[in-house]
Amino acid sequence: MTTDLNVDETFKKLQTHKGVKGILIINKNGSVIKSTFDNDTSQQYSKLILDLFPRASTLLKQNDEKDQVSFFRVRSQDNDIMVSPDNDYFLMVVNQVKHE
Amino acid sequence: MTTDLNVDETFKKLQTHKGVKGILIINKNGSVIKSTFDNDTSQQYSKLILDLFPRASTLLKQNDEKDQVSFFRVRSQDNDIMVSPDNDYFLMVVNQVKHE
Repeated sequence: MTTDLNVDETFKKLQTHKGVKGILIINKNGSVIKSTFDNDTSQQYSKLILDLFPRASTLLKQNDEKDQVSFFRVRSQDNDIMVSPDNDYFLMVVNQVKHE
Repeated sequence: MTTDLNVDETFKKLQTHKGVKGILIINKNGSVIKSTFDNDTSQQYSKLILDLFPRASTLLKQNDEKDQVSFFRVRSQDNDIMVSPDNDYFLMVVNQVKHE
């Protein structure tokens, strides 16, 4: 189980990455553990993640019943949202896409 | 609009890529245009894509209302499913993840 210390460390490390626009950590019930977003936005993202994740998992299991999602990612031309499940948490990072 | 020629070309090109386990092209209503999967599996994937895509789009638009999904991706340790929307089609590719 990720201890609170790890959560803070992960959070601080990610915040220093260039292009990171926002970070959210929620538990598996959707409660916001830590967030750089305001409360409403955090709640919105939380709902969307809990809605998306089981569907992403079903898509993966269509190919291999035993498979477990390590992350899912939604990309547009300018933005990149990555969601990674841990045992007890979901970590979401919103990135600005760098155009060379 | 992607003509049938492009669809065939895209399909053939992708099939030659190492690690590609399956390819599916559906239109925006979910009708299967071309697939390496059997019919039932193709229909299952089609339903899952149509179910997932609007949710992936909503997640993205939470960050930027004008944003459009260029692709979404679901990864596990061994498999990688990428779905990319075109104007009229969805292209899905199931890949085996290469472990160095």
